[in-house]
Amino acid sequence: LKKKREAKNPDVRISLPVVCFVWQIAMIILFGVFVRYDEESDAHWSEHKREKNITSDIENDFYYRYPSFQDVHVMIFVGFGFLMTFLKRYSFGGVGFNFLIAAFGLQWALLMQGWFHALDPADGQIKIGIENIINADFCVAGCLIAYGALLGKVSPVQLMVLTLFGIPLFAVEEYIILHVLHVRDAGGSMVIHTFGAYYGLTISWILYRPKLDQSKRLNGSGYHSDVFAMIGTLFLWMFWPSFNSAISDHGDGQHRAAINTYLALASSVLTTFAISSLSAKRGKLDMVHIQNATLAGGVAMGTAAEFMITPYGSLIVGFCCGIISTFGYLVITPFMEKYMKIQDTCGVHNLHAMPGVLGAVVGAITAATASESVYGHEGLVNTFDFKGKYAERTPATQGGFQAAGLCVALAFGIVGGAIVGFILRLPVWGDPSDDNCFDDEVYWEVPEDEESIPPILEYNSHMVGKYADRM
Amino acid sequence: LKKKREAKNPDVRISLPVVCFVWQIAMIILFGVFVRYDEESDAHWSEHKREKNITSDIENDFYYRYPSFQDVHVMIFVGFGFLMTFLKRYSFGGVGFNFLIAAFGLQWALLMQGWFHALDPADGQIKIGIENIINADFCVAGCLIAYGALLGKVSPVQLMVLTLFGIPLFAVEEYIILHVLHVRDAGGSMVIHTFGAYYGLTISWILYRPKLDQSKRLNGSGYHSDVFAMIGTLFLWMFWPSFNSAISDHGDGQHRAAINTYLALASSVLTTFAISSLSAKRGKLDMVHIQNATLAGGVAMGTAAEFMITPYGSLIVGFCCGIISTFGYLVITPFMEKYMKIQDTCGVHNLHAMPGVLGAVVGAITAATASESVYGHEGLVNTFDFKGKYAERTPATQGGFQAAGLCVALAFGIVGGAIVGFILRLPVWGDPSDDNCFDDEVYWEVPEDEESIPPILEYNSHMVGKYADRM
Amino acid sequence: LKKKREAKNPDVRISLPVVCFVWQIAMIILFGVFVRYDEESDAHWSEHKREKNITSDIENDFYYRYPSFQDVHVMIFVGFGFLMTFLKRYSFGGVGFNFLIAAFGLQWALLMQGWFHALDPADGQIKIGIENIINADFCVAGCLIAYGALLGKVSPVQLMVLTLFGIPLFAVEEYIILHVLHVRDAGGSMVIHTFGAYYGLTISWILYRPKLDQSKRLNGSGYHSDVFAMIGTLFLWMFWPSFNSAISDHGDGQHRAAINTYLALASSVLTTFAISSLSAKRGKLDMVHIQNATLAGGVAMGTAAEFMITPYGSLIVGFCCGIISTFGYLVITPFMEKYMKIQDTCGVHNLHAMPGVLGAVVGAITAATASESVYGHEGLVNTFDFKGKYAERTPATQGGFQAAGLCVALAFGIVGGAIVGFILRLPVWGDPSDDNCFDDEVYWEVPEDEESIPPILEYNSHMVGKYADRM
Repeated sequence: LKKKREAKNPDVRISLPVVCFVWQIAMIILFGVFVRYDEESDAHWSEHKREKNITSDIENDFYYRYPSFQDVHVMIFVGFGFLMTFLKRYSFGGVGFNFLIAAFGLQWALLMQGWFHALDPADGQIKIGIENIINADFCVAGCLIAYGALLGKVSPVQLMVLTLFGIPLFAVEEYIILHVLHVRDAGGSMVIHTFGAYYGLTISWILYRPKLDQSKRLNGSGYHSDVFAMIGTLFLWMFWPSFNSAISDHGDGQHRAAINTYLALASSVLTTFAISSLSAKRGKLDMVHIQNATLAGGVAMGTAAEFMITPYGSLIVGFCCGIISTFGYLVITPFMEKYMKIQDTCGVHNLHAMPGVLGAVVGAITAATASESVYGHEGLVNTFDFKGKYAERTPATQGGFQAAGLCVALAFGIVGGAIVGFILRLPVWGDPSDDNCFDDEVYWEVPEDEESIPPILEYNSHMVGKYADRM
Repeated sequence: LKKKREAKNPDVRISLPVVCFVWQIAMIILFGVFVRYDEESDAHWSEHKREKNITSDIENDFYYRYPSFQDVHVMIFVGFGFLMTFLKRYSFGGVGFNFLIAAFGLQWALLMQGWFHALDPADGQIKIGIENIINADFCVAGCLIAYGALLGKVSPVQLMVLTLFGIPLFAVEEYIILHVLHVRDAGGSMVIHTFGAYYGLTISWILYRPKLDQSKRLNGSGYHSDVFAMIGTLFLWMFWPSFNSAISDHGDGQHRAAINTYLALASSVLTTFAISSLSAKRGKLDMVHIQNATLAGGVAMGTAAEFMITPYGSLIVGFCCGIISTFGYLVITPFMEKYMKIQDTCGVHNLHAMPGVLGAVVGAITAATASESVYGHEGLVNTFDFKGKYAERTPATQGGFQAAGLCVALAFGIVGGAIVGFILRLPVWGDPSDDNCFDDEVYWEVPEDEESIPPILEYNSHMVGKYADRM
Repeated sequence: LKKKREAKNPDVRISLPVVCFVWQIAMIILFGVFVRYDEESDAHWSEHKREKNITSDIENDFYYRYPSFQDVHVMIFVGFGFLMTFLKRYSFGGVGFNFLIAAFGLQWALLMQGWFHALDPADGQIKIGIENIINADFCVAGCLIAYGALLGKVSPVQLMVLTLFGIPLFAVEEYIILHVLHVRDAGGSMVIHTFGAYYGLTISWILYRPKLDQSKRLNGSGYHSDVFAMIGTLFLWMFWPSFNSAISDHGDGQHRAAINTYLALASSVLTTFAISSLSAKRGKLDMVHIQNATLAGGVAMGTAAEFMITPYGSLIVGFCCGIISTFGYLVITPFMEKYMKIQDTCGVHNLHAMPGVLGAVVGAITAATASESVYGHEGLVNTFDFKGKYAERTPATQGGFQAAGLCVALAFGIVGGAIVGFILRLPVWGDPSDDNCFDDEVYWEVPEDEESIPPILEYNSHMVGKYADRM
């Protein structure tokens, strides 16, 4: 056993520091060349204010968006991070690697998204402000979703590579969807969730481990790790209204996006509990469903949150998503693992892929059926940004473009995932062996704590092997 | 044993899904008929803005209240949820059922409160915006407080029933107190805390379980569950200033409410530590007190937070509440259980009932003694809303109405709790048997985790030494 | 053993309640004499608004700063509190005593800082508003940092004494640095971190325990306590942009401070992971580094965050700090303990002292090199507050004063720490004996929870029944 484990060498002592150092230095150089403050975060703001007749500092976009930014930030680091602590012995890896790749990803995203969206034509530099850092967090979310499918099966170096390629893929995909197709997707049902989920699932498919059941003993939750995961769930659930409203239009746009998301999420909770209870002996609830499927309503409102989908429309979307997502955990994930060779640790297919696609479809339909009687003329123009060269676009056309956006997200996720998957199969990244997955021992100094100190004086071959390692 | 447990059948496989589905569908239908966006969240906002000469999007109420809303939202789901994880084997039920009933309750509250407070006479529809969703969270808080008294002893179906009736009771009580009596209670000392606590305590009294000590082994905290509960405590404690200021008046009202609450809470912490230490051998602190009584200052400032109670007044309120509340845990809860047959799992009588009543009294006195010299003329009119048909009301009269409001809250809590308690005694709700309370095994698939598998039948010298020490 | 333990009597049953009661009553009296609402939180706000031609309630400073205040509040109570739960059996003490001293400290800080910064000359009273309560939280942070060096080795009474003296020391130091020297330090690299760390380290040096290794078995983390500590880490990390921008100038000042801090923190994460991995066999990461050194970038941006340090400048600062801080944990902390007799439980020297000093130096250099070409004339004047009697100060001179500020912070920390350290050596404070440190049993009622009670050598029908159920 020991020998075979060495066949895959999960030693990252050289590779991880090199990757971190080189990429961080690259970030510094690229930021040095390209990134500056925008007019609202630059010390020239007081002059800018006077030029533009802005009467008050409160009009700085910072005050419109900073509270939402912080909520999104909590979702990225505590939300995604703690949601991935549910495995009984992979909590360090769940929250720790999430932290690492998000911290790298947000820098890289500021650059990549900056080149596509925020380049100042006057001097060729990227001007950053509050909206850019929200978008960087969004971009990172795509990679963290992909991590969910791979949790416990990859090395931190592989995750850094996944992020290195994932961010530019995201930025190009986003550029095509939002700018070329002029699609609305403020909360990213397509851009973030669909892309991220298929990116991760495709990678997982390529990295398929036929003997993963050798790690079965650790591929499950513990009582306390399930409670830790609920921290992640709840912060995601509570702050999702901020996620979907963070970059939507000032005023009614942000207001409506928050309310719609709030309602969809509430509705998801009830149907998740219902299906979870219905599916088990004596109606016992499953924490996996509660931790994940309750969030599906937020994912599915990513596109339509800022539209006039109506409060009951939001409830219906959440209703359906709670059912679909829980059903996914019960039926589709096992099916995919058995017949399609896709091992999806966190069930991102159920939480992000299906609700993301549904959200895109809902968005397309809601856009296609928009009318001046519902939105008002100005409201319609503002909501769909029918301005400039898009001034003549009709809601029906917009609906078609929305649907096209979904295809772009799917294509980027699957094709990008396939390419990156093959790169990650190279035997140089220090990934764990099949009998060593879902185990923090591989990449972390794990404390021998009271609880885990094995009762010596008994022959326990598993334990002996395990603790011998540490000495 | 096994047989007897079956006497009460805690199987909710049919009842829970049915309740969740039917009620969620009812919500969708009622929202479809009644609920629409208000003028600040509707796409017609830009026209509305022009009509009302509003110069900037930042004047949308969203920007005044959204940060506070998110804090309140965290209190409801993480605060109340994690506070109830303190039981060693009921953490899933604590945080999970809190999640379920809050998600249902907020929808139901939008409707019930909407019919009483936000009905647009023009079209008979409820127009919702940020203030409505804050109020819905508040309304839910009443039911979650009631849950605290019943924690571990009821089924999720019973909790849904408790919420189904609790929300309309709350909405009517709130309507009478705030609108009919024109009482001020921005943080809900009466409306939320007094009502919620007596509602739950009365139900607990009616559901009295004489043989509850059969579950004694699980009716206590564990080391880690106590730390989890501190997450709830701290988020409640930190965000209570937002709770009490979330719907108070723009400007100085919100500002003052936050400061007063901040101070009262700080003061409660010191007296809680003092009494807790004073009451135990060698001055050892009790986590139950720290988790709960430290919050009493926030409860007691619910009414007076927006008044000119002065900073030292706030400190005095917090000072008294920390003492009373800790004393309650030491003396009153055991007394109530033994002599009054009220089993109060979380001690809501100490955290919500007594401080809530005290807060109402403080509010009444502060209102009765208000004067133009302290508030200024405009300030007095704004703070107590002495406008329209209340233009002639004096502070002294207001004080009397404030006291009347307390009576209404008590009456609704007790009478409502009695009625709902009898409904919950029907033998159809799947509640656990007396020897099976406080146990997640009843309603949840509990993981068999590493830590909880006991190393049976072996001599373990380390363990023996260590635990011998503690005895 | 038992006898010897009694040599130090950790009974705080009299001293802790007395201290809490007397000091809280003192606070009430002093607040009664000195503290009132400021014009933005007073009911006269509507008159004030009219006088000053303020057109909208949104101009109340509450709306500029309240979201940041709440983030800072979370850092103080959850951030610092949970970061100190990492010890396997001192989580109650970590989060609980943090709660106690912060709640006392913030009241005391409102007074002390008020006397120095917010005294209304008209009536000799302290007028408090949102900025004061943010500053009170900041002031408390200094004492909490000091607690980090002493964690597990002192009694709660000693911590109250540490806070009682720490707050006035902080207030005087702050007054000299910010007002006398007119130094800029919005996020407190000098004022908070350098002062707090050296204050705590000096006390720890004076309270040196030569036989502390008698408590070695408890001076380490556990698997779950490490995950709890990550809650603290992440909330500190996420909200540090709010910390550094909470009291900086409206508009671009707050905006820029948030962005710079966000970037520096991201950069720290990568170098922390790099050094941590590089230093261990097989590249295994150490949770201590991840929990702490990742935050160093935020500390080091405390002074320069609001300056035009540029985005890449921020990344460079974070880059260096992650390295220095992790290196500190690997080399300097053991060195200090062995050769300098400074026992630093949380490694505050690595997280606060060194990055704080570095931040001060960075701030001085950035200030000294500021120019009108970069800031614009108005920007330069606003950023460095070159107004009134400082209108003639040049950036170069400002740089010199910034460096002088660092010396003041160091001097106050070390001299203050020495004095307070000697006071804390008096044998009346109930501190634990050397073999009893890092143990919650000393000051807390610790539950004998299920997990830790092994069902040894006894036929336990409950357990058998219970676990039989699961199979």
